[in-house]
Amino acid sequence: MSAKTASNAFDLSTWVASRSKTVDAALDRFLPKASAKPATIHKAMRYSLFAGGKRMRPALVLAAAEACGGKEEAALPLACAVECIHTYSLIHDDLPGMDNDDFRRGKPTNHKVFGEGIAVLAGDALLTQAFEIAALAKGWPRYSHRDLVLEIAKASGSLQLIAGQVADLEGEGKDLSVPQLRYIHERKTSALLCCSVRLGGMSANCTPVQLQALTDFGYNVGLAFQVIDDILDVTQSSEKLGKTAGKDVAAQKATYPRLVGLEKSKKIAAQLTQKAYAALKPFKGKAVALEALARYLLERDR
Amino acid sequence: MSAKTASNAFDLSTWVASRSKTVDAALDRFLPKASAKPATIHKAMRYSLFAGGKRMRPALVLAAAEACGGKEEAALPLACAVECIHTYSLIHDDLPGMDNDDFRRGKPTNHKVFGEGIAVLAGDALLTQAFEIAALAKGWPRYSHRDLVLEIAKASGSLQLIAGQVADLEGEGKDLSVPQLRYIHERKTSALLCCSVRLGGMSANCTPVQLQALTDFGYNVGLAFQVIDDILDVTQSSEKLGKTAGKDVAAQKATYPRLVGLEKSKKIAAQLTQKAYAALKPFKGKAVALEALARYLLERDR
Repeated sequence: MSAKTASNAFDLSTWVASRSKTVDAALDRFLPKASAKPATIHKAMRYSLFAGGKRMRPALVLAAAEACGGKEEAALPLACAVECIHTYSLIHDDLPGMDNDDFRRGKPTNHKVFGEGIAVLAGDALLTQAFEIAALAKGWPRYSHRDLVLEIAKASGSLQLIAGQVADLEGEGKDLSVPQLRYIHERKTSALLCCSVRLGGMSANCTPVQLQALTDFGYNVGLAFQVIDDILDVTQSSEKLGKTAGKDVAAQKATYPRLVGLEKSKKIAAQLTQKAYAALKPFKGKAVALEALARYLLERDR
Repeated sequence: MSAKTASNAFDLSTWVASRSKTVDAALDRFLPKASAKPATIHKAMRYSLFAGGKRMRPALVLAAAEACGGKEEAALPLACAVECIHTYSLIHDDLPGMDNDDFRRGKPTNHKVFGEGIAVLAGDALLTQAFEIAALAKGWPRYSHRDLVLEIAKASGSLQLIAGQVADLEGEGKDLSVPQLRYIHERKTSALLCCSVRLGGMSANCTPVQLQALTDFGYNVGLAFQVIDDILDVTQSSEKLGKTAGKDVAAQKATYPRLVGLEKSKKIAAQLTQKAYAALKPFKGKAVALEALARYLLERDR
């Protein structure tokens, strides 16, 4: 976490470190032990789940719950569920039949360590585990248990997260327009970030106005996050990113820098983050963690 | 469906044909249209889902619901959910990194038609869709909505369905014992068949005694089903099976015929089916469809 944020009144580094620890401990509890038979699959699941991910999505779940006055305990299963979804999607995206990536977060990708078959199954298992964990979350009169499961299934299904990956695969080497690129970003990234903050709000029995605010916030933060990912792929080294830099350029993938240039991309990211801040107005200063997370996402350098 | 069963008092062929039609129509309703953007993924999902599967698991869900006096309407989303799980597992099992199968149900496998990347994503999407559909099922005081989601997640997770596939992958070319082979069959097949009849019972708000009976029934039918699959791989042609016959032998996979011989394998299958029949006693003759399905599974020749 960038030291810059430490100068703010709210100390994001401390907040994130504490929440990451809680999330890691909960994930460890929710998942079968690495020794559970068959050990290979549980080692593979845990390898990617505990590979040093930034826990951005769980942080968004917990921050949204806090903004709505909810309890961490109620939000925690949902925070873990979205992290399982995120990790499964990375394992499958890295497969040779998809992005064919050898490194992720500075470590060999799941299929490089465990082989393709196990990597596919580890992703499947994490996706399934997400719903098992989500099933442990408590519903409210306003947001039933069914609403929570539907929220996750829709955000990660064939019309959202998976749609983004498909469009991304199909767009390789093609001249995409900015709206087409935005379509991909909305689904590949915004859908799950949006789902994360919405789940946090729902776990706190938030008002409809708060839910709409979180939706707008998540949507814009998600788009900003992806634009910045595109920018970092061009401007940073593989070592710093912990994954292969310049891959998008090499794969002739449509990215914001490629379509509109680097400077305009940076402006777009800043504008999207401004929209995200504006969405937080209804919380009247109570969404400090969410705001700090958005600022961190814009200022990050890897 | 074998004509033999038509001579029974209960006409399984007619029953299955009618239920398959209902399930197909419901699956068509629950899934995004083939034209929904991005069309590739929805075409790929539907390609395998409507590739002429026997709808064995949905039939078990509906038959179990009937045995418990439940309504088809309540069981239908669960029947569709298990079929989505089953289909996703077939798509992923057929991948080159796993069983590397070119044909399934007489048609080219998903990755042969759509490529590996899309096949992985189509499986992911069907798995996710299963939970979205299950979320539409109605809970009861005795079996909450949460229980239904947990039932599916556990049966298809890393300790059951996926564990079976992992153990199967890892067992290739090794000398497995009968208990090790049974471990694989319990997870690869029994887990989801057991889950199917349990879900049917739960959708009918069944008694605990009925649920236990269904569990025993599903477990034994599942094992019988898999032993028979092993037998058919040895005794039948690829054309008849609609998939590559003799694959288990070629892959040096442990199978019942290989470990205990063909005749003893047939006896084991018959014994397991007898146990399944015995489990249906508490239904006092009301589980006619379940009983007929078990008989069909033992007598099938493909």
